[in-house]
Amino acid sequence: MTDNNTMEKITSLCKRRGFVFQGSEIYGGLRGTWDYGPLGVMLKRNIEREWWKLFVEQREDMYGLDAAILMNEKVWEASGHTGAGFTDPVVECSEGHRFRADHLEDVTVCPTCGAAFGDAKDFNLMFETKVGAEGTTTSYLRPETAQGIFVNFKNVVDSMSPKMPFGIAQIGKGFRNEIAPREFLFRVREFDMMEIEYFVREEEWETQFEEWREALWKWFDHLGLSRENVQELEVPEDDLAHYSKRTIDFEYNYPGKGFDELAGFAYRTDHDLKAHMEASGVSLEYIEPDGSRFVPHVLEPSFGVGRTLMAVLSEAYTEDEMGEGTRTYLKLPAHLAPYRVAVSPLLKNKPQLVEKAREVFTMLKGEFGNVAWDDNGNVGKRYRRQDEIGTPACVVIDFDTLGEEAPEHTDTVTVRDRDTGQQTRVKIAELVDSLK
Amino acid sequence: MTDNNTMEKITSLCKRRGFVFQGSEIYGGLRGTWDYGPLGVMLKRNIEREWWKLFVEQREDMYGLDAAILMNEKVWEASGHTGAGFTDPVVECSEGHRFRADHLEDVTVCPTCGAAFGDAKDFNLMFETKVGAEGTTTSYLRPETAQGIFVNFKNVVDSMSPKMPFGIAQIGKGFRNEIAPREFLFRVREFDMMEIEYFVREEEWETQFEEWREALWKWFDHLGLSRENVQELEVPEDDLAHYSKRTIDFEYNYPGKGFDELAGFAYRTDHDLKAHMEASGVSLEYIEPDGSRFVPHVLEPSFGVGRTLMAVLSEAYTEDEMGEGTRTYLKLPAHLAPYRVAVSPLLKNKPQLVEKAREVFTMLKGEFGNVAWDDNGNVGKRYRRQDEIGTPACVVIDFDTLGEEAPEHTDTVTVRDRDTGQQTRVKIAELVDSLK
Repeated sequence: MTDNNTMEKITSLCKRRGFVFQGSEIYGGLRGTWDYGPLGVMLKRNIEREWWKLFVEQREDMYGLDAAILMNEKVWEASGHTGAGFTDPVVECSEGHRFRADHLEDVTVCPTCGAAFGDAKDFNLMFETKVGAEGTTTSYLRPETAQGIFVNFKNVVDSMSPKMPFGIAQIGKGFRNEIAPREFLFRVREFDMMEIEYFVREEEWETQFEEWREALWKWFDHLGLSRENVQELEVPEDDLAHYSKRTIDFEYNYPGKGFDELAGFAYRTDHDLKAHMEASGVSLEYIEPDGSRFVPHVLEPSFGVGRTLMAVLSEAYTEDEMGEGTRTYLKLPAHLAPYRVAVSPLLKNKPQLVEKAREVFTMLKGEFGNVAWDDNGNVGKRYRRQDEIGTPACVVIDFDTLGEEAPEHTDTVTVRDRDTGQQTRVKIAELVDSLK
Repeated sequence: MTDNNTMEKITSLCKRRGFVFQGSEIYGGLRGTWDYGPLGVMLKRNIEREWWKLFVEQREDMYGLDAAILMNEKVWEASGHTGAGFTDPVVECSEGHRFRADHLEDVTVCPTCGAAFGDAKDFNLMFETKVGAEGTTTSYLRPETAQGIFVNFKNVVDSMSPKMPFGIAQIGKGFRNEIAPREFLFRVREFDMMEIEYFVREEEWETQFEEWREALWKWFDHLGLSRENVQELEVPEDDLAHYSKRTIDFEYNYPGKGFDELAGFAYRTDHDLKAHMEASGVSLEYIEPDGSRFVPHVLEPSFGVGRTLMAVLSEAYTEDEMGEGTRTYLKLPAHLAPYRVAVSPLLKNKPQLVEKAREVFTMLKGEFGNVAWDDNGNVGKRYRRQDEIGTPACVVIDFDTLGEEAPEHTDTVTVRDRDTGQQTRVKIAELVDSLK
């Protein structure tokens, strides 16, 4: 089995089991767009909830924000996104076919029609739209959530009176008009981001950088990613964006792809706030209790939800030989798995089993929320089905539960562990604690 | 105090306390866009979480979805949104100033420059953008999330094998290029929606309609909206959309505005699935276990997050005479309040009080997540501040807690209730249960 196959298998599982569908599929799709299906939404919501808990709720120095996707175009002028910094080179042949110049390398005639290419031009990656009936106001679909944070810096300071250092976090959509979207969730035109802008005094940036670096590793641990599959790539000084003094890319070892982007972590100096201060004329200085003022410097940990989800699925995807033939299962951490547990009556045509199983199901649903009811086919098939979507435990209500076999087993259920396949008998009264 | 004043006060509170800011404010804004600040995000996330819990997690007939905002343009041709059904009438004067014709009524010359108007034209409310480097592929920012559900109907059926009746739920952004956005969160260009498409057999639509109608009322109860402030408006047959056989608008009695839209509930027949089936050529029939096939009919409960948030704030906004002068507080249900509880040391310059208060704070944060730490100013001011953002309880650690006054009060704290102002002493060991 090559790693390439693994990625294909994950992609196929995503579609078959309701994690990710091609966007607008019944109309032939819209390249670079993907829809999360029922199980994908559950996994995505779990990832986002855990991120928010770890980086916002459990800290005292973090504030949430949810800024609009459409912003005044001056935001993007100030940030530099309307300029040459946010473009890809495009070549066009005399027949009008366009390609990304850096993907064609030495090709000089159009691969589609054979006509000659003109010179490469800069193609801006922002989606443009017109706002209002006049048609004269231009806006863009934001290519990142970060600018929504910077332009609200003053609002957050004025309303929340945060102490330095502090951060603002946001989960939301971003859009890039990729010329050549490809590779499933890896290069897309519409994506979900989880971003933090952390504001510090200039003199403390290095200390804070190290603290955040450690916090990022803790997050990857929390996702269940093994440390050998995550690596830091220190961006060389020559490759740094002009405003960044230090950037680390965190990469994950995706099957068939190798190490590739998972998250970014940049020290952006005071570039952003200064640019918006100058362009808007509004002071974005922070005033210390002693009255001193300064423009804060910024650390930016930035995470793509799609890439995080792919790393989590890649890490979890496992095949082994259990029972008959090869078994596929997702070794997802319990706090990320779409369903925390599945409940089954041993036989679906025995009303007493079904009734008891419904009781257990209702109890567990009250406790865990996402609980699957699965009474299709025989128990072996149900296990396989739940394994494939990463359900950590399957609870089966059988004749023992009803006290029909060994009296000492009355009101106990079989709990089957996803990873080991081991089955243990647990009292219903102790089931919630046991699953926790 | 008139109701108009109340709405102004709520709007002002939203800005001052970090609930809602004008979008792109430092650049003069972008009309019809709003950003949720730190407390607004907390309230919004709570509303969305409760909605998801009630309508998706706690049910067995519901599946989640998160479809892309950008879709193949054929989706909007099939749904009728590119046609005359999704337009507002616009008049343009000879100098190019445009207005919504139905807002001007009998005005014949431009209010801006006095030039004459031409005939009214249809203005499509969808934001348009171009996808890809060629610039030939048109897409739109979706004006509703519903179509993302319809085009994924087959994907959900194939991957999840749901039994009839079942529903698909989605929370996400929608966009409408309103000609005249106004009134805070009420008429905006970018908004968050919570939508359900519930698929039924034609013969059961009336029974299911009644069940959902009841479920909607339960949701409004859960939000803490009093029943006299919510009303059903049965849309008269003549005003129904051509595909709908019955629609009920749920309205809330917003202060200064009166009864106005809160949620919609429509029986859309099999119009949507049939339209997409015809346009895409893909069968969207449901196949029953007995092999019979049919195109399901659809019930659509649809909720605007912004309007829900405004109804919740309107219901919660209260003024009374407590202590010195008028007190403003948000009587939010505990499961919606941004902070579940606030913790304070009586004095911030007594290390023993602070240390003990930090212990209690950490304990409560572990339990409730969103807990405020408030040690600014005197206790009375802190109460007022927490009242204004709806924190249900304030816990104060004082000298009694440390055992310095009455020994029987050692390790007890003062818990102050937001609504009554009453203070009770509670043992720290019993604090979590007491707050629950």
